[in-house]
Amino acid sequence: MSCIFCDIVAERAPASFVHRDDDVVAFMDLRPINVGHLLVVPRQHAVLVGALEPRIAAAVWATGLRLSAVLRTSGFRCDGVSFYVADGEPAGQEVPHVHLHVIPRWPDDGFGFRFRADYGERERFELDVVALGIRETIRRAE
Amino acid sequence: MSCIFCDIVAERAPASFVHRDDDVVAFMDLRPINVGHLLVVPRQHAVLVGALEPRIAAAVWATGLRLSAVLRTSGFRCDGVSFYVADGEPAGQEVPHVHLHVIPRWPDDGFGFRFRADYGERERFELDVVALGIRETIRRAE
Repeated sequence: MSCIFCDIVAERAPASFVHRDDDVVAFMDLRPINVGHLLVVPRQHAVLVGALEPRIAAAVWATGLRLSAVLRTSGFRCDGVSFYVADGEPAGQEVPHVHLHVIPRWPDDGFGFRFRADYGERERFELDVVALGIRETIRRAE
Repeated sequence: MSCIFCDIVAERAPASFVHRDDDVVAFMDLRPINVGHLLVVPRQHAVLVGALEPRIAAAVWATGLRLSAVLRTSGFRCDGVSFYVADGEPAGQEVPHVHLHVIPRWPDDGFGFRFRADYGERERFELDVVALGIRETIRRAE
C-alpha cells in the first residue's frame, strides 16, 4: 500500500525539506496554517506514534523542539509555537504516517480551536472519578 | 511569583493526579475537552519547552505517549488521541508553565480547529522559499 509520507521520505515524491537525518525528516506542510508550518516525520512507517520504536518517537519530538527554536530565529513571524499530533483518524489524522506539526504562531493569527457545544459546562467533581479509572488502568498494567 | 502548576506539582494546590514521578506529573485538565483529557507537566518550572532540560522535555513527551496508551485501554471512550503543546502566550498558552495536552478523541466529538479566513488559498511555490530561509537559519547556527 502506498504512503505519501513514505514516498517523501524516500524522495520518490517532492517536498520542501528543512531537515533530514537517519531517523526523521522535516518539510513544509503543503497547506500551512501559518508561514513556516513544518511537519516532522519519522522515516519508519507507523500510523500511530505508539507503534514507533521509542527511540524514534523521541527523535520526532526532539527534532520538533529543535526546529521550533530555528523558527523563532528564522526571520519569519513566530511569536509562539503550536506543537500538534493527531494520533489516529478519529483524532483528525489525515495522512496515516506519524507526523508532528510545528506551527509558528502570533497573536490574532486566526488559528485556534473549536469546541463542542457543551464545552465547559460539565461538573468538575467527575475528574476525580476519571483519574481513579485511569490510575486503575495503570495499576492493572504493572 | 506564584505559578498554579508549581503549586499543583508541590501539592499546595489540589489536582486529580494520574501519574507522579521525579521529573513529571500528570493530572486531569480542569476544563476537559473530552472525558479523560490529561495534562503532563514537568516539575521543573519553565514557561517555554525550549527552556527545559532536554532530558525533562523528553520525559514530558514519553509520559504523554505512555498515558495515551493507558487512555486507549482505560474503558473511557478513546478512539484516537490529540497531543498538543501551546508554547508561549501567542500560541494560546494560558498557564505559563510547560504542559502537554493528551486528549481522547472520537469521530464527531465536536473538537477541532478553526482557521484564518484565507486558509488554503495561498500559492504553494512559496514553500520552497520558506524552506530555504529555514535551512539558512539552521546553517548559520551550525
